[in-house]
Amino acid sequence: MFPPAELLNFFRNEDDFLIATHMSPDGDALGSSLALSLALQKIGKKTFLLNSDHVPEQYTFLPGYEKFYTFENIQETGNRIQDFKRLVLIDCNDLDRVTDDKSKISNFKFQTSAVIDHHETEKPFGDMRWIMPDSPATGLMIFYVIKALGIDLSQDMAATLYAAIAVDTGNFRYSNTTSEVLRIAADLTDAGAIPHIISTELYESWSEKRFRLFIKTLDTLQIEDGIAITTVTRKMLEETLTSPDDIENFVSYPRIIKDIKVSVLLREIDDNYYKASLRSKNNINVARAAEAFGGGGHQHAAGFKIRGDFETVKARLIKQIKSNWVDG
Amino acid sequence: MFPPAELLNFFRNEDDFLIATHMSPDGDALGSSLALSLALQKIGKKTFLLNSDHVPEQYTFLPGYEKFYTFENIQETGNRIQDFKRLVLIDCNDLDRVTDDKSKISNFKFQTSAVIDHHETEKPFGDMRWIMPDSPATGLMIFYVIKALGIDLSQDMAATLYAAIAVDTGNFRYSNTTSEVLRIAADLTDAGAIPHIISTELYESWSEKRFRLFIKTLDTLQIEDGIAITTVTRKMLEETLTSPDDIENFVSYPRIIKDIKVSVLLREIDDNYYKASLRSKNNINVARAAEAFGGGGHQHAAGFKIRGDFETVKARLIKQIKSNWVDG
Repeated sequence: MFPPAELLNFFRNEDDFLIATHMSPDGDALGSSLALSLALQKIGKKTFLLNSDHVPEQYTFLPGYEKFYTFENIQETGNRIQDFKRLVLIDCNDLDRVTDDKSKISNFKFQTSAVIDHHETEKPFGDMRWIMPDSPATGLMIFYVIKALGIDLSQDMAATLYAAIAVDTGNFRYSNTTSEVLRIAADLTDAGAIPHIISTELYESWSEKRFRLFIKTLDTLQIEDGIAITTVTRKMLEETLTSPDDIENFVSYPRIIKDIKVSVLLREIDDNYYKASLRSKNNINVARAAEAFGGGGHQHAAGFKIRGDFETVKARLIKQIKSNWVDG
Repeated sequence: MFPPAELLNFFRNEDDFLIATHMSPDGDALGSSLALSLALQKIGKKTFLLNSDHVPEQYTFLPGYEKFYTFENIQETGNRIQDFKRLVLIDCNDLDRVTDDKSKISNFKFQTSAVIDHHETEKPFGDMRWIMPDSPATGLMIFYVIKALGIDLSQDMAATLYAAIAVDTGNFRYSNTTSEVLRIAADLTDAGAIPHIISTELYESWSEKRFRLFIKTLDTLQIEDGIAITTVTRKMLEETLTSPDDIENFVSYPRIIKDIKVSVLLREIDDNYYKASLRSKNNINVARAAEAFGGGGHQHAAGFKIRGDFETVKARLIKQIKSNWVDG
């Protein structure tokens, strides 16, 4: 991978950059943005980091995370959104991924925009577009930008890029884990990233109450025809002093079982009212089942809300999921 | 790391090798033994793989696993234990790790023995000893042996070594994940190892009964002073139709909790008799606590057997672990 010359020249020739990434930012979005910002600062540029949301608590270990501003507090930098002339979109490729609020977008008055992303692109936004759907993470692309600009990787750049790549490859477990990924991870480690500290922050920083909720959730496991069903009731949240945020990713765990094709987590929102999260393996498409109940998502991760008592909801859901994999 | 010349000459000059590894073999023991066996066969040597136990089901994805013999069926190779003249111990450094049965050891009549291991607790066994406690996995050492012997890595050698290294570094999450580890993983990937297939086999191929045992095990969780204690009783194994093999890695899960420094799993072997597995985070050394009870291991992973009722065992263990982290 080699970044386009016009993109490199853009970074070389301009002096200040507003770096923005997508709403609900993940590790790749945040780590990639931070690394680029640190690198550009190292060659004397001014950078400003923008996100519509605050940095989620689990990512506050990333060096420099406090440099992210929201639309609400970016004036603390002494600038208004409409003052920024050069925009860099990271890990997304259109402004509608930066914010849902059209009135905020209308404040953007930039003259030039660049896009660095690895998502499939649908929108023709940006003067300079470097979009590589085959790249395992945007973090890899930023690594190559920094290299191509001849900037030495600092420890903080290395750590933020390592985190970006770790998150998007499932810590080297997903099918996008290539030898290139592993070799760059090695280079980042040589530059000061500490793999076990980053993975501890990413994967071993649950609260005890969250783990207690996790155990209670696993205790509800039912398996029918290759479909794992776990449940989180309001009572379980109360008993463990947890919140729905704590449930994130629980639905993935039953996939540990070889014969599980789909994992469903039903969270009780109210009496006879559930939020369903679905995860699938291999070729099973759960988006279609979710759509049948008025929800949506992707092939391997989808969700919807449904009314009914638990047994009825469960039966309808199993029937729908199975009809989809028989047809699909 | 460069293997000792006499070890390399041993492999070059001799013609047949009995390769043995420790009881209850893990991924590093099995993967390293298999890779060495495949490499030596490639240069025309005869190899025989010995383990006191059968290969656990979760490792039957390793290419060549069916070439492992036990003391009971090795005569199928046309040889008796007493016929083997050259012994190679892998991932352990004494015969008492190969079997608990002294009468079996007395059948060994080898003339020369070599040891390749990365464990800290060392016994003075073997004519040629290459023991590197700083090596993250025995798999790395075998990688260097194969390189030094000038043998091209086959896809099967790469896959077995990748699995060995993945297991002993927690799939690149433990503190032994160095840039060297990542770079070798990249080389192995280039040689044909497929990271996501290996990690699916290692981490997403549990039987349902194993997952049921896992849930029961988590239900026993107790936390005292940053030490997580889980228990597996014989009754739990009976109820879930599982075996001690199924417990592998359970002890790692409570480390997900941020404040846990050490995770202990106590498996009931017999009345008032337990096998303790210890895992630690950060700077805590559990090998020393294990040694205090006559066991051994690494800084972050150790074990031992202990007699006593559960509460007594638990209290002694907590006291010992805490004395080590205060001193250490």
